[in-house]
Amino acid sequence: MLSTMQDVPLTVTRILEHGAQVHGRSRITTWTGQGEPQRRSFAEAGARAGQLAHALRDDLGVRDDDRVATLMWNNAEHVEAYFAVPAMGAVLHTLNLRLAAEQLSWIIGHAADRVIIVSGSLIPLLAPLLPGLTTVEHIVVSGPGDRSPLAAARARVHEYEELIAGRPATYDWPELDERRAAAMCYTSGTTGDPKGVVYSHRSLYLHSMQVNMAQSMGLTDRDTSLVVVPQFHVNAWGLPYATFMTGVNMLMPDRFLQPAPLAEMIESERPTHAAAVPTIWQGLLAELTARPRDVSSLTQVTIGGSACPPALMAAFDKLGIRVCHAWGMTETSPLGTVAHPPAHAVGTEEEFGYRLTQGRFPAGVAARLTGPGGERLPWDGESAGELEVRGPWIAGAYYNGPDAEPLRPADKFSEDGWLKTGDVGTISPDGFLTLTDRAKDVIKSGGEWISSVDLENALMSHPDVAEAAVVAVPDDKWGERPLATVVLREGATADFATLRAFLAEEGGIAKWQLPERWTVIEAVPKTSVGKFDKKVLRRRYADGQLDVTRL
Amino acid sequence: MLSTMQDVPLTVTRILEHGAQVHGRSRITTWTGQGEPQRRSFAEAGARAGQLAHALRDDLGVRDDDRVATLMWNNAEHVEAYFAVPAMGAVLHTLNLRLAAEQLSWIIGHAADRVIIVSGSLIPLLAPLLPGLTTVEHIVVSGPGDRSPLAAARARVHEYEELIAGRPATYDWPELDERRAAAMCYTSGTTGDPKGVVYSHRSLYLHSMQVNMAQSMGLTDRDTSLVVVPQFHVNAWGLPYATFMTGVNMLMPDRFLQPAPLAEMIESERPTHAAAVPTIWQGLLAELTARPRDVSSLTQVTIGGSACPPALMAAFDKLGIRVCHAWGMTETSPLGTVAHPPAHAVGTEEEFGYRLTQGRFPAGVAARLTGPGGERLPWDGESAGELEVRGPWIAGAYYNGPDAEPLRPADKFSEDGWLKTGDVGTISPDGFLTLTDRAKDVIKSGGEWISSVDLENALMSHPDVAEAAVVAVPDDKWGERPLATVVLREGATADFATLRAFLAEEGGIAKWQLPERWTVIEAVPKTSVGKFDKKVLRRRYADGQLDVTRL
Repeated sequence: MLSTMQDVPLTVTRILEHGAQVHGRSRITTWTGQGEPQRRSFAEAGARAGQLAHALRDDLGVRDDDRVATLMWNNAEHVEAYFAVPAMGAVLHTLNLRLAAEQLSWIIGHAADRVIIVSGSLIPLLAPLLPGLTTVEHIVVSGPGDRSPLAAARARVHEYEELIAGRPATYDWPELDERRAAAMCYTSGTTGDPKGVVYSHRSLYLHSMQVNMAQSMGLTDRDTSLVVVPQFHVNAWGLPYATFMTGVNMLMPDRFLQPAPLAEMIESERPTHAAAVPTIWQGLLAELTARPRDVSSLTQVTIGGSACPPALMAAFDKLGIRVCHAWGMTETSPLGTVAHPPAHAVGTEEEFGYRLTQGRFPAGVAARLTGPGGERLPWDGESAGELEVRGPWIAGAYYNGPDAEPLRPADKFSEDGWLKTGDVGTISPDGFLTLTDRAKDVIKSGGEWISSVDLENALMSHPDVAEAAVVAVPDDKWGERPLATVVLREGATADFATLRAFLAEEGGIAKWQLPERWTVIEAVPKTSVGKFDKKVLRRRYADGQLDVTRL
Repeated sequence: MLSTMQDVPLTVTRILEHGAQVHGRSRITTWTGQGEPQRRSFAEAGARAGQLAHALRDDLGVRDDDRVATLMWNNAEHVEAYFAVPAMGAVLHTLNLRLAAEQLSWIIGHAADRVIIVSGSLIPLLAPLLPGLTTVEHIVVSGPGDRSPLAAARARVHEYEELIAGRPATYDWPELDERRAAAMCYTSGTTGDPKGVVYSHRSLYLHSMQVNMAQSMGLTDRDTSLVVVPQFHVNAWGLPYATFMTGVNMLMPDRFLQPAPLAEMIESERPTHAAAVPTIWQGLLAELTARPRDVSSLTQVTIGGSACPPALMAAFDKLGIRVCHAWGMTETSPLGTVAHPPAHAVGTEEEFGYRLTQGRFPAGVAARLTGPGGERLPWDGESAGELEVRGPWIAGAYYNGPDAEPLRPADKFSEDGWLKTGDVGTISPDGFLTLTDRAKDVIKSGGEWISSVDLENALMSHPDVAEAAVVAVPDDKWGERPLATVVLREGATADFATLRAFLAEEGGIAKWQLPERWTVIEAVPKTSVGKFDKKVLRRRYADGQLDVTRL
């Protein structure tokens, strides 16, 4: 029996229209590095999105399903593209400006981007790619930066402001199917080509509702969110869409992502919320320790992208800034879990432990654990398996061209359609996820699993250790054993034997899990999104580039 | 171009599974009137929902789309039915126990209910209907009450607890289309037969997300919600579903809806939130004034169903209880607007005014105003028109039998599918709705509209006036003019001339809008859901039953 409800699609268009009207006074503030920031109301941004859509359609010939790429920092113009492109029926493709040139070039070609909107300061990144970009017909430049490297481009080059100037601020947005493609993002896998994830209007809309639920970020128009997480990184965790849905003000750092300007913008613009990966917070914490600032406006900080070290969370607690862990990935839009402690743990000794988990699954994310042999594992907080998830904002395939069948590799998607996350961990009976490793990083020693993350966290809680990464290396007797790579602080005095003893005595690491192999490195290599890049460490070890001490 | 997202339906089943597992420790507490309340965890209620589904299918033969009705108070068993019935693929039909016998009987027949689950204490209400109920095959009784009046029933009579005892707690819930019927509710129109609204799994799921957004009720598992609004009244404003989605504890009053037990349960169970219509709050306020209680746990009270008089809101402010207005109707699931003041008004003189509006539209509810001549009116806070709404949890038709085309009467639905609410009001540029009248209650005097609600609120702010209702009556010269019907407090001294002068001097009512016709009544007649029943007053006037003074 059918319901009598209206059949109204969930679309980015609706979020745009709502935000620009009902929350028209809310603002996007973009940092400019000098003088007053650029301030733009949602009403203005909405009108400019209408103008941009007219320009894209009428002047650049963008049609249904055409890919419009952005190679941009977080700023108001990028938000305008976030709305104009999907709402007109085209597909927004956010390019990761941290990728290597050949990867970027491959991705632009694979997505067959027809238009690229580029921040002026990123032209040096785009220029070397130009000869190889066969699908790109138009380049639109926004913001300051030398345009001359684009002179050689085969594509037509436009100025963003000139392009949209004088066009109508209202656009007769088409009524779209909610399952239609709205945006796409490539995930830089550690093996093989990058994989494209295509978000639908429906998935972005539902994800925005989830972000705004009180048990996720739960922001309102009284809040200002400092969106440090890049707009090229899983839609800045959905914040540009979520904020337009509820009128949350956005503070955009543009290219000023260094600790000093971040501290300055927090002090002067007084955001109540911020979102970024742990490495950003590490840097900010060092900056605030060196040069204290008034950051008292910040009441909630969302950390994701990789696990937040307990020491970092505790340090922020001391500053009066409440860190909230979240977990997700490109394939999960990204919101998968959020670590608000459960009611029964609030104010108890358990609370901090709950905050250190990856967080609790919302209703929109069903989860299950699969053991090494493919068996389903219980939610008992102890059984560790690979996490698989299912839900309306979770990928069920990868992009394979606009007319091709999507790809469903068996190592990424189960036969019944669940996403295999590649993350290994446990789930408590009340739905809190604790990740212990990437499936590929777990150390298989004598038929048992050793968590590299547990070892890293224990190591990083030693005062002499700035950073530490643990990787599996081959071992004749045990199959694999852990190698500890350590970045020492200036003036550190601890030697490897001391650190090993510390792991056993203070870190709670079982004796058989203690690393025998140790090395000091300058810095832990990072991926383009700031995660520990362990495959680089494994390669260095295999190539004999590391000076390893054996205890 | 299609997205690569998983195609996962939004269903009540998912809310049930999530709530029973992830929020298994959250509780439904049902008031019993004596001794300890009944306490049941979400895990237990979820298991019992599984048992109930087995009983309904295996013993009672309930199949897809069969209607299972409830004639119940707010309690844990009613919540179990809320989940078991839709999740098994059948349709939950909540019966309004305030309706007259003939209306109830008509509605049960029209919906072709096969099963009725009835609270034992409501058997006296059901018994007289039995001879006329031809579709009902099973009656399931839950809770205390004399069963003997059911002896004459043709339907088989079951005890709820005996029926579910010993059955498996897990049920292999079917995967359902999200647009399928999940629940239904009849709205008692003022003209013609009651109209059935059929909610889908999708609409209930999206509505639950909306309720949990920070700008709606925004509750978490740290909250306990006192659900006074009846479960037969638009799904208790969606709270049983919304709470299972996020682990909010429920405090259920069962049949103890009088001010004294409500005050007692607030004091002893310490809910943080409560939801009810204004008349409940009027009674509770009088009770608290007469017999003060510790109600300090209550931080947020949601008032809907009809406008909250400003004096009542101010009185609650003094008690430290923050009243939040919401507007909706059976056809809107019901959440249409919520009156959190906008950021710019917080702490200013404007704040209270914003709180007195019906509230702000969320992204899920698109709105427009239609003037007397069918023209679209601007959102300027001044132009008054009939409110029309559109969205995924808004009705687009009425039920007309399981296999019949739904009804779309032209006075209720526009040609392009919007719901005509029958409410007249204005919308501010930032999306706040102020209702001034029902379309049928507006007073058309000399080609201008007079708001009956403005007159009523101004009258009720006079200390001698307990309640006041203003209705349109025919007038030879002006077409229609207002008739003021007033309930005076004990010991009142004001006469009609005094009240009329008060309206002009203190109430800000324009001279041409002041009523000439006045009468004192014992009480304002109310509908089954506690709203002013103005058609009764108009009828009494037409029948010459009112003693009208003309100033």
